[in-house]
Amino acid sequence: MLGGACTYIALAASYFTTVKIVGVVGDDFAPQDTDLLASRGIDLEGLERAPGKTFFWKGKYSPDMNDRETLQTDLNVFADFQPKLPESYKKEPFLLLGNIVPALQRDVRQQMPNAQFVGGDTMNYWISDFREELLKTIAGWHCLIINDGEARMLSGENNLRKAAAKIMAMGPKILVIKRGEYGAMLFDAHGIFMAPGYLLEQVFDPTGAGDSFAAGFFGSIASDGLDARHEYDPRVLRRAVIYGSVMGSFCCEMFGVDRFRTLTREEIDNRFSEFKAFTHF
Amino acid sequence: MLGGACTYIALAASYFTTVKIVGVVGDDFAPQDTDLLASRGIDLEGLERAPGKTFFWKGKYSPDMNDRETLQTDLNVFADFQPKLPESYKKEPFLLLGNIVPALQRDVRQQMPNAQFVGGDTMNYWISDFREELLKTIAGWHCLIINDGEARMLSGENNLRKAAAKIMAMGPKILVIKRGEYGAMLFDAHGIFMAPGYLLEQVFDPTGAGDSFAAGFFGSIASDGLDARHEYDPRVLRRAVIYGSVMGSFCCEMFGVDRFRTLTREEIDNRFSEFKAFTHF
Repeated sequence: MLGGACTYIALAASYFTTVKIVGVVGDDFAPQDTDLLASRGIDLEGLERAPGKTFFWKGKYSPDMNDRETLQTDLNVFADFQPKLPESYKKEPFLLLGNIVPALQRDVRQQMPNAQFVGGDTMNYWISDFREELLKTIAGWHCLIINDGEARMLSGENNLRKAAAKIMAMGPKILVIKRGEYGAMLFDAHGIFMAPGYLLEQVFDPTGAGDSFAAGFFGSIASDGLDARHEYDPRVLRRAVIYGSVMGSFCCEMFGVDRFRTLTREEIDNRFSEFKAFTHF
Repeated sequence: MLGGACTYIALAASYFTTVKIVGVVGDDFAPQDTDLLASRGIDLEGLERAPGKTFFWKGKYSPDMNDRETLQTDLNVFADFQPKLPESYKKEPFLLLGNIVPALQRDVRQQMPNAQFVGGDTMNYWISDFREELLKTIAGWHCLIINDGEARMLSGENNLRKAAAKIMAMGPKILVIKRGEYGAMLFDAHGIFMAPGYLLEQVFDPTGAGDSFAAGFFGSIASDGLDARHEYDPRVLRRAVIYGSVMGSFCCEMFGVDRFRTLTREEIDNRFSEFKAFTHF
């Protein structure tokens, strides 16, 4: 079925801001899948079509949904992907880089030298086997969004407070550490912010929840705007963490991207209010 | 070294309210240990001394401190313990029952028939092997304070929202589910409250953290008071969860009960304020 970081990010971010995507699909990519993206107003000019099959991933979750095992990864057309930004993308102020090889992330970032706010994701494989490349890449980012295991691996520190300090010294002055069902933490110049995970009645499918989180976080900042001095208002960043949590939680409610077929902005804002009610004291 | 649920609870609660303990120690119990309790103003009239050795427990923690293995448990004088409340205890309004065999918890509760607010802890062993006893016991409690694994076991539900609903139908109208480093959740008539775990620079020894949490929670409610109609103000309960989290976090900072030798109320209130700063948005 339809999936992939770019898909989840684009769909989730589309509730907050205009979205332009860069990615590649094969000639097997279904028209109804592009239709879904287009129906959310997502700009598909940067979506390349290449001969061959679309990237494919298959995995299996543990009973508590906190761990997953990859059963199959076929890179297919993704193997030779060289992202090229359309001219119309290059002046956008916000750039969110999905989890791919760090050299490609850096290449895309260089195509948007004037981006005001650049952030992204990475994963254990790049941290362990492409460490130097990755460090060069994130050095130029304003924001890094990773999970707790990745933060421990990247920093070499088991304690997340120490891990965060080390990672922020690598470049990103804003660090979001996701902890799955346990919520997320924001580290920035103003200190620490801790958001709980939304307590769902049922976690149906956590695939894409991390990407949806990143999209809600970035989208919320984009819709609030940044001030001209590049000083990040802690209220803007904290609201963004909550919107990220909201989007991650919705993503888990149905299989694949299905929740985004019916989700409304009103539902998003209602859940944001629930987060306030759950955490206020 | 000095340990045990009663010790942790008494020390931690002593920062909030007057504390009277019921328990048993052997003739090996060190005078400096009773001195420590007395120095915090804890009433020791209910502390029974029996011939023989004091209860002893030894365990080993996993590297991330989230799991532990029991290496040795010697019940010693605890094996034949029959708690008897001194007359001077019986009119107290608050009763917190530590983790012992449910029949003894019920027996103590019956010695305080007019207690306004009764709560306690339990563990996997009583849940699996003494289930009927335990259900009879907690049916008479206002509040149950357990960890997430115990909540799942007691309810038979993996999802904590569903687990909470089932447990609250067993009697306690106030349920606190502790999640170790990930914080705690409160379920009550007013809804759900979620508190993050305090992000320590170093978790030195989590032994007693759960008991210290329960003590901070109960102590805070006792110091705020309950209204005459037994309707629990959600603000009182939410503050209590944060004070519980504060006390649990301090407990982890040093080995055994050592942190309570120097801890001040001012430090407690400063950390309470930090929790506000960490969670406000």
